[in-house]
Amino acid sequence: MSKILIFGHKNPDTDAIASAISFAYLQNKLGTDSEAVSLGVVTEETQYALNQFNFKAPRVIETAVNETTQVMLVDHNEAQQSVSDISEVEVLAVVDHHRVANFETTNPLYYRAEPVGCTNTIILKLFKENSIAIPKGLAGLMLSAIISDTLLFKSPTCTSEDIKAANELAELAEVDLNIYGLNLLKAGTNLSDKSAVELLDMDAKSFPMGEKNVRVAQVNVVDVNDVFSKQAELEITMAELSAVNQYDLFILVVTNILDSDSVILATGNPIKAVEEAFNITLENNKATLKGVVSRKKQIVPQLTKELSK
Amino acid sequence: MSKILIFGHKNPDTDAIASAISFAYLQNKLGTDSEAVSLGVVTEETQYALNQFNFKAPRVIETAVNETTQVMLVDHNEAQQSVSDISEVEVLAVVDHHRVANFETTNPLYYRAEPVGCTNTIILKLFKENSIAIPKGLAGLMLSAIISDTLLFKSPTCTSEDIKAANELAELAEVDLNIYGLNLLKAGTNLSDKSAVELLDMDAKSFPMGEKNVRVAQVNVVDVNDVFSKQAELEITMAELSAVNQYDLFILVVTNILDSDSVILATGNPIKAVEEAFNITLENNKATLKGVVSRKKQIVPQLTKELSK
Repeated sequence: MSKILIFGHKNPDTDAIASAISFAYLQNKLGTDSEAVSLGVVTEETQYALNQFNFKAPRVIETAVNETTQVMLVDHNEAQQSVSDISEVEVLAVVDHHRVANFETTNPLYYRAEPVGCTNTIILKLFKENSIAIPKGLAGLMLSAIISDTLLFKSPTCTSEDIKAANELAELAEVDLNIYGLNLLKAGTNLSDKSAVELLDMDAKSFPMGEKNVRVAQVNVVDVNDVFSKQAELEITMAELSAVNQYDLFILVVTNILDSDSVILATGNPIKAVEEAFNITLENNKATLKGVVSRKKQIVPQLTKELSK
Repeated sequence: MSKILIFGHKNPDTDAIASAISFAYLQNKLGTDSEAVSLGVVTEETQYALNQFNFKAPRVIETAVNETTQVMLVDHNEAQQSVSDISEVEVLAVVDHHRVANFETTNPLYYRAEPVGCTNTIILKLFKENSIAIPKGLAGLMLSAIISDTLLFKSPTCTSEDIKAANELAELAEVDLNIYGLNLLKAGTNLSDKSAVELLDMDAKSFPMGEKNVRVAQVNVVDVNDVFSKQAELEITMAELSAVNQYDLFILVVTNILDSDSVILATGNPIKAVEEAFNITLENNKATLKGVVSRKKQIVPQLTKELSK
């Protein structure tokens, strides 16, 4: 029997990579021969975490069915965010903290989702439920995922469970949560050598909303001008990517991790829906969303609702 | 804030009713004001279990949004098996042991599915994870669901976890598992006063399969002739129900709980797909499926695969 592949979403962030590694570790301990792989190269933030705790980035796969018949998904479930041939393999398990959409199986499966800030908060529970110990380095990687997904607890997606889990993992990993946390987040804000295409692809996801296909990219910064100094180039690239990939709307969310606000840049149609969804007026295609840092909780539901009217 | 409604699937079986009651009990203990309701009247088997352990049948609802904005689903997730206005309420949680299909949310939620034989096996775990004690009567009701769904452990859906859970619950409920189990199953096989429509509606579910809409009804018997003595009437009724409800295929699965075989009666189009899916030849629209007792594991996946070709 071939190895079961375990992976997070396309354009993997730190949680997508760390949860593949931590869930594969758990599955192997439980006797299921599995391998963590990824659906894209890791970000600088993730590479920082991997280096810190002595992990290698998982190998990148383009398709699954050439290697295996069975997979497990972490940190996502929607088909368009998954491996391109997801419909040709059996999904045995999902561990996730997102909405359920565009996901369907033929057989019963293990599905564990909770409305918490990070997949690794759930995976920590699974380790405990199965009485499997977490090695020091893995604890550090899982901690990195929680810091990343919750923006060091500042995101409205963050729950008391995430904070508790992070403190527990920080102790196991023997790191100072706040010092390491800020260093990790800053490692992800180094955008100086990124092209417009790279910026728009670093952490981007597609969502069907009503009849529309919406692309939402997000980048973390310590100064939003690091991104908007290239606004003209970004807009041209967003239009090009939308034409090629048939996105109706393309929204770039630039999140300042220090003050926890975001500035969005929106292109496509219907642009009015963006203004209605967030009760804003776009100026020069941009608007500030005060206190908005979470795509999942503060962008996608509002826009889905507006586009489903 | 209005009460959260918790319910199982339409045409509720013992697990659908018992899991609504047990999960609502747990939620209330955890501080979430909730009420178990049902999407249909209970079967004789379920009524037997309710009487045995001093429960009343939950009240039947037709719609949810007139009472609440938030619901929790047990023992199902597919929209066509749920309350008619499911798209108008928020699903906060799902506890289930079926495939995931035709299910979509706008927000992250709690979703707990495991490929075990019964929803109450999962709910027992949730009680333990939350350190909530299960009262004697509730244990008996949860046990009844496991007996019903696994046909007293004879179904291929039954796992070692279901058997372990049932034994634990039998001890809490202070009943002899085997004696009570057979009595419960037999209570569900009293079909003498059932009309053809009632037989076809007792435990029936709809499934989208490929481009087809398939209805699969199942009844448990101790003698298949109790049902097939009315074959002509059943076929006429199946045709009528299919016309009204736009079922392409209507399959009645008559399961002998003593020898664990089923005889199916199949009508509609493409009837050839039924023969291909189970590698059988229908004679007089019927065929025996040796060792087949589980709609979920031995009927739906095979037919879905065939109709998706």
